[in-house]
Amino acid sequence: MDETAFPPSPFDRLIATEWVPSEPGRAVARIAMRDELRQPMGILHGGVMASLVESVCSMATAKEVFSENRVAMGQNISVNFLRPVSSGGIEVRAEAVHRGRMTWVWRADVLDSDGRTCAVAQMTIAVREAPDGVDLEELARAAASPQEEPGR
Amino acid sequence: MDETAFPPSPFDRLIATEWVPSEPGRAVARIAMRDELRQPMGILHGGVMASLVESVCSMATAKEVFSENRVAMGQNISVNFLRPVSSGGIEVRAEAVHRGRMTWVWRADVLDSDGRTCAVAQMTIAVREAPDGVDLEELARAAASPQEEPGR
Amino acid sequence: MDETAFPPSPFDRLIATEWVPSEPGRAVARIAMRDELRQPMGILHGGVMASLVESVCSMATAKEVFSENRVAMGQNISVNFLRPVSSGGIEVRAEAVHRGRMTWVWRADVLDSDGRTCAVAQMTIAVREAPDGVDLEELARAAASPQEEPGR
Amino acid sequence: MDETAFPPSPFDRLIATEWVPSEPGRAVARIAMRDELRQPMGILHGGVMASLVESVCSMATAKEVFSENRVAMGQNISVNFLRPVSSGGIEVRAEAVHRGRMTWVWRADVLDSDGRTCAVAQMTIAVREAPDGVDLEELARAAASPQEEPGR
Repeated sequence: MDETAFPPSPFDRLIATEWVPSEPGRAVARIAMRDELRQPMGILHGGVMASLVESVCSMATAKEVFSENRVAMGQNISVNFLRPVSSGGIEVRAEAVHRGRMTWVWRADVLDSDGRTCAVAQMTIAVREAPDGVDLEELARAAASPQEEPGR
Repeated sequence: MDETAFPPSPFDRLIATEWVPSEPGRAVARIAMRDELRQPMGILHGGVMASLVESVCSMATAKEVFSENRVAMGQNISVNFLRPVSSGGIEVRAEAVHRGRMTWVWRADVLDSDGRTCAVAQMTIAVREAPDGVDLEELARAAASPQEEPGR
Repeated sequence: MDETAFPPSPFDRLIATEWVPSEPGRAVARIAMRDELRQPMGILHGGVMASLVESVCSMATAKEVFSENRVAMGQNISVNFLRPVSSGGIEVRAEAVHRGRMTWVWRADVLDSDGRTCAVAQMTIAVREAPDGVDLEELARAAASPQEEPGR
Repeated sequence: MDETAFPPSPFDRLIATEWVPSEPGRAVARIAMRDELRQPMGILHGGVMASLVESVCSMATAKEVFSENRVAMGQNISVNFLRPVSSGGIEVRAEAVHRGRMTWVWRADVLDSDGRTCAVAQMTIAVREAPDGVDLEELARAAASPQEEPGR
């Protein structure tokens, strides 16, 4: 799976998701800590962790089902927050535990820079026929453009 | 609960959370749709919905337990995404269904601009003694400053 | 929705689920506390609450989609336990918040005999074409038989 | 962790939970399929899977914190059902991913007799001081009695 050849995600650019190549059925991405990602007490906002999990699982599913003219959308996410993160950054490592016709289910770990587990998550991604209004060719062209890397 | 008098949240400023006053035990906030919040297919990124739910529930709990020298942190979130949002914005309406000594539990609806339910969520907030390193007086001073509105 | 005319569920018989008629899009069922439903500390086992939520949501969905030759199966459940139950019983009140072609999403309250909320839940039910091997006619005949009430 | 020396759980006896010894921080239990555990379509009721996950995680936590005069209670469970089970049985294998002072968090796989993953789960167990009314000495005596094995 070529992690750098896919349409850009504006929100991943906003939070500065860095995609990391991985083997099929797995997916990895990182975010470096910076002040604008903090909540009032100064630690990383939990929504950033949830967002990165969702990006990783959705994107990895989308890439696999894209060639079948199918799209992937988040259907359910459950996150347990275990440990606050105040510096360094986080890495999400996700593994597909189910690859069905209508749903993929992922399990993810959120690790801090020292490799400690800061959150665990489960996520269901719905897989559906591409709906009218989604121009997959345009997405494909964007994906083929080297300057349109996701998360930059 | 005075929704506008509390320390700023950098991440809520990044995603442009707008706090809406509400009665005690309930909490409301909004985000206006804009391009940088979209995922690759052009709809609102699910992580934005999860983040807003987390902000609303955490902040509303924090405000209630603040005077007891206690802090609030997200412990668990579960979100079901029901309907994509492509324009307008979202509003999260949360209700505390449990206010325990160690945990608060919230239930939240994510509505689109037409009032349709786009996601439902449950969130557990852990409530703990303020740890060393968290300067509650400084937070209080920030909270007392009218120009330090959250999410702006 | 005729709550008493549907195929029996052996497990609901084991835990003694009592179905309560309700309006469409809502579903209600009860279980009376008894010793064999307790966990080691003597309170109602949380699995009983989860099981009743699952039964209520699955059965209510199944009844609605049955006539379209579709079946319903639990896909995801998330339960927050708020308060232990040691006597009386529980009642689950569920409401469908999404009725899609492929999934229904329910939100449920678990109440004790005094009407206090003891748990809250969200549940996704997958709706699919009836697979080979499921004899819906046989299910329908069972459903038409008055002595084959569920949960008795 | 001696899996057979702990107070009996009436509900685990009802569903016939079989405890399997495991290393600390992990926990395993099984249930053999039988007709009274089926839902209306003839497959294993999802509530049985959820109940076994809850039993495994709660009991394994309880055993670890018991000596500190602390008790364990289910706080949150999230289960994704991946594959129906119609024969054989299930085995839950759980791993503690967080062992905090107030909460333990577990991740669990539900496997069928062929070792296929049928469900995945996350569970939070609340750990608290033993409340009044819970006679830990009596529980300990029951635990010391060899004929009082759980789930038999």
